[in-house]
Amino acid sequence: MTNEAQWHYENFEPTGSSIGYRITRKLDEVQSPFQKIEIFETTDWGNLMLIDGAVMLTTRDNFLYHEMMSHPALFTHAAPKNVVIIGGGDCGTLREVLKHPGVEEAVQCDIDEQVTRMAEKWFPELCDSNGDQRAQLLFDDGIAYMANRPAGSVDLIIVDSTDPVGPAEGLFNKAFYDSCFRALREDGILVQQSESPLMLLKLIQEMRTEMGKAGFNTFKTLPFPQPCYPTGWWSCTLARKAGGFDFRQDDAQAKAFATKYYNAGIHHGALSTPAFVAQALGE
Amino acid sequence: MTNEAQWHYENFEPTGSSIGYRITRKLDEVQSPFQKIEIFETTDWGNLMLIDGAVMLTTRDNFLYHEMMSHPALFTHAAPKNVVIIGGGDCGTLREVLKHPGVEEAVQCDIDEQVTRMAEKWFPELCDSNGDQRAQLLFDDGIAYMANRPAGSVDLIIVDSTDPVGPAEGLFNKAFYDSCFRALREDGILVQQSESPLMLLKLIQEMRTEMGKAGFNTFKTLPFPQPCYPTGWWSCTLARKAGGFDFRQDDAQAKAFATKYYNAGIHHGALSTPAFVAQALGE
Repeated sequence: MTNEAQWHYENFEPTGSSIGYRITRKLDEVQSPFQKIEIFETTDWGNLMLIDGAVMLTTRDNFLYHEMMSHPALFTHAAPKNVVIIGGGDCGTLREVLKHPGVEEAVQCDIDEQVTRMAEKWFPELCDSNGDQRAQLLFDDGIAYMANRPAGSVDLIIVDSTDPVGPAEGLFNKAFYDSCFRALREDGILVQQSESPLMLLKLIQEMRTEMGKAGFNTFKTLPFPQPCYPTGWWSCTLARKAGGFDFRQDDAQAKAFATKYYNAGIHHGALSTPAFVAQALGE
Repeated sequence: MTNEAQWHYENFEPTGSSIGYRITRKLDEVQSPFQKIEIFETTDWGNLMLIDGAVMLTTRDNFLYHEMMSHPALFTHAAPKNVVIIGGGDCGTLREVLKHPGVEEAVQCDIDEQVTRMAEKWFPELCDSNGDQRAQLLFDDGIAYMANRPAGSVDLIIVDSTDPVGPAEGLFNKAFYDSCFRALREDGILVQQSESPLMLLKLIQEMRTEMGKAGFNTFKTLPFPQPCYPTGWWSCTLARKAGGFDFRQDDAQAKAFATKYYNAGIHHGALSTPAFVAQALGE
């Protein structure tokens, strides 16, 4: 820890590529029961959170991910009232969800309380809405939470997790998707971060296969820029029991809240699957 | 040069971030009169070209850049016949331009013949159309070429250059834009790569200012993913003497040629400027 700038590199074995940041100093570190959380100060990206050495978010670019994990799904559902976020401990997705006045309940269930405590300290802007009366912050196992959630009680489940290794591995298989399927109402939507559309299409295919085994039968993968994640290009995948992915375009255009990236046109663009993605996913 | 995988990192000082690749070996290297060109083999990205140490393209992701540098502008012009590419020595933009059957002339003017020779050798798929009767490959100074091009003889100028330092510096100022303005017909379009919309908005502003001094009066910046460039998110900026940026959506939807990324919906999305970009550019 010095005040001289150094470069921190994260090598992503599955993509054969690396992303790095120029950092000025380490601000904080905690070893939770689940993982090691580190906070660095960067020269150009604000603060940087690493979990077990993997970049989770930066002050500068997290809005892309958080907006795209929430608004496309929320503007696809006709009237989302009950929302559950699995993971999402940095509270950025929760903040976006609560921008929708129709949402009556937003449960955030992250296994690791320390992620939220670090976010409150180093990314306070993401925690703006934690005091909202509609918000409920649980620090518990998301798999168990979904297994115990009453059937047909949820409109939207957002799986805002780390990669499918370690604590998050159980969020990418049929058993978990079975619980989600049961908890969702008939017109409910499951949306999950689904890694790089350029390099990790096989993972998206596998996710869809597992979701399909649980009964979901329509899928849509929306790409979006996310500079701090491998390849700088990321995606979320939406799954439904039935019905398509046309969205409430007029409502999106007339939204009464501010976003930095999301708008109706960008949503339309994200729905326009590139040919190479469509081909890989057999669409 | 070994057969063991190593990591090659490129640090981008202006963005405080870095991108790297896992490489297996160096395939080629040439010092041209203008710059040093190196080719590496990677584990996951095909071949990689560096110019003076900066990543220019990879086999895996160059389609994003080449498609977005060409098709949005070509589908915005009502009937582009005469196209000039300044830079673009890897021939990937030329290939995309020639997919449009209405194009009658496509001049590629890159100062460094060695870039094209290396592309022919290591990225042969990008050079597929170099023998097209409509194509003309010049190895000359693009600034001089535009200064000498007859007035009102061009429909579309694509500036597919390296960053605004070194050989390409003269492609980002009023003198060059004056030549472009003069060479373009009244309904002509200038499109130029314009760096990262997340981190380099000041550069886009400066480009627009210089273009404005030359007489261009409408501008549109289209973001697109480009994993191998700083932040993984890139842009092109379109400039016109008059008129807007509505595009020939029906023609784009009915295009008779294949693209891997570009489609009409993605074009529409790229036109939907994110709020933070619009704000920074004063739109």
